[in-house]
Amino acid sequence: MLIGNRSWLFENRPVITSTGVVGGPFEKKGKLTADFHSFSDDLWFGEDSYEKAQKKFLEEACHEALNQGNLQKEDIQFIFAGDLLNQITSTSFACRSLSIPYFGLFGACSTSMEALALAAFVVNGKGANNVITGSASHNAAVEKTFRYPTEYGSQKPPTSQWTVTAAGVGVVSSSGTGPVVTSATVGKVIDEGLKDPYNMGGAMAPAAVDTIKAHFEDRSLPEDYYDLILTGDLGKIGHAVALELFQNENMQIDQNSFQDAGLMIYNDEQPVQSGASGAGCSAAVTYGHIYNRLKQGELNKVLIVATGALLSPLTFQQQESIPCIAHAVSIERQGGFVQ
Amino acid sequence: MLIGNRSWLFENRPVITSTGVVGGPFEKKGKLTADFHSFSDDLWFGEDSYEKAQKKFLEEACHEALNQGNLQKEDIQFIFAGDLLNQITSTSFACRSLSIPYFGLFGACSTSMEALALAAFVVNGKGANNVITGSASHNAAVEKTFRYPTEYGSQKPPTSQWTVTAAGVGVVSSSGTGPVVTSATVGKVIDEGLKDPYNMGGAMAPAAVDTIKAHFEDRSLPEDYYDLILTGDLGKIGHAVALELFQNENMQIDQNSFQDAGLMIYNDEQPVQSGASGAGCSAAVTYGHIYNRLKQGELNKVLIVATGALLSPLTFQQQESIPCIAHAVSIERQGGFVQ
Repeated sequence: MLIGNRSWLFENRPVITSTGVVGGPFEKKGKLTADFHSFSDDLWFGEDSYEKAQKKFLEEACHEALNQGNLQKEDIQFIFAGDLLNQITSTSFACRSLSIPYFGLFGACSTSMEALALAAFVVNGKGANNVITGSASHNAAVEKTFRYPTEYGSQKPPTSQWTVTAAGVGVVSSSGTGPVVTSATVGKVIDEGLKDPYNMGGAMAPAAVDTIKAHFEDRSLPEDYYDLILTGDLGKIGHAVALELFQNENMQIDQNSFQDAGLMIYNDEQPVQSGASGAGCSAAVTYGHIYNRLKQGELNKVLIVATGALLSPLTFQQQESIPCIAHAVSIERQGGFVQ
Repeated sequence: MLIGNRSWLFENRPVITSTGVVGGPFEKKGKLTADFHSFSDDLWFGEDSYEKAQKKFLEEACHEALNQGNLQKEDIQFIFAGDLLNQITSTSFACRSLSIPYFGLFGACSTSMEALALAAFVVNGKGANNVITGSASHNAAVEKTFRYPTEYGSQKPPTSQWTVTAAGVGVVSSSGTGPVVTSATVGKVIDEGLKDPYNMGGAMAPAAVDTIKAHFEDRSLPEDYYDLILTGDLGKIGHAVALELFQNENMQIDQNSFQDAGLMIYNDEQPVQSGASGAGCSAAVTYGHIYNRLKQGELNKVLIVATGALLSPLTFQQQESIPCIAHAVSIERQGGFVQ
């Protein structure tokens, strides 16, 4: 149901009944290892290209989510997923092997919540009993697509972020137990004219703030409603910019309840510059760490705000600025308030 | 509402209240000129790159649809759109100037109906009053992305198809007059092992037949229910392959009511080899020619089956076969039967 200008309320309470989160070797050394279901110690995941490895991360995450939920592939009506690669081939090829009717999405690193918003809307509206939704990224495949092959060993400035090698997916169901997807706010493309592809966080922060502001307005909620507002992925710089923009907008967002997935996944010693990013980052943190905190009652009400930089190497070469978008989805414990 | 395994019935009758269709100079010489709202005589559309021209085709089609429907941008809640370029930048950049909350989609040339299926589901489920949905392609931008810059003048074999330079969009509304979107069937990824990127039609035909078969099963409809089943875009070869596959599957599809958008848009003298293709082809034919035939009562019940080849140049280089998908959406006149 539409509320306000661009938000949906999910009155039939679609539930995230299970999740699957699979990470790479670098993620295994990170801070959230207990929240992954499994890791590949091999960046290639036994495949002969990084792109095929990314595909396998997504496939494995889907299989894990099915296992966790005691579901068969045949129980799933649709999959809503996407990634950062050209023509989102890793996702499409994973859906070839999964053989589940498929909606391909592209929202760069906002894909995880674009997909969850649509998945929840479809389940809420009785368009499916169970759907899989999620996203994946692979450090070497994404670096090769957007910048340079990692084998070149090129250096990146401190404002840059480290693409996560991981896949995170959730099963959204019309019934069952688990955290409830209660609402979503759809992002507009926001472009403040920044052109530096090594500072995506700074470019994306205004989109995150725009969507968060719209969310509170559309839902008529107090700004301290959520235990946690989690962006993904602004990194250090974008996070600081967002906090400043909240002040400019006179929004009372508590610093302690405003965190970023890109600042949570790795240990401080890991050399990830301004933080983590990649379509798999917010997906892995949401369906791993946040999902577990919700299930255990450590969190009750969270708003996940996935942010995407909608550029390509070509638009950068054509000297365009970076259009950005953020999609927000609220997830609450079974007992959570639904307006 | 889910019916069968992977179809939706839109019981609240979302209506396509207006459309916008804009084509390039080559399309102006085609067969369906009367069904376009306007043309650009300039392949560049006044921009300084083909990608920016593609963006402008989409922007202009959206403005045209708003004008046709006497709507303002503010009346539209969401836009569902995508294209073939890397990171679907032309669509995202168009949505930057349109400033309408945006779902980015990628389904290659199936994007038009992937988008319409989701748009209709959202309007049907009271998630929006009005949405814009559609797709665009640009011959020179897409050739450059997938094959060679057109300036090279490289030759293509007779099995290849010509990417359309056009954008087609529709406004889907919860009320108003116009053809009704009655149902949709979501595609699975089908890959029969074909690897020739110059024969997409042959590769995509099995996906089209799979989705059409699923549609009739899910909706329990007789196979002669539709006045027209329109694929987009199989071209000459894919069309012939599909007809053969219908026979193999014992499906009674009348040859006269089974047509292909890629065989309709150009004149016979235009050198387009096996036919037209591109994300803008099925969109332009559907929101132009088919929409007008439905409004004028020349057609009553149509099933649009948009087909996409989900490969990238990289997956071809990695010697992968071509995964394909087809999404089907039925559009019927106001009086049309809804199950």
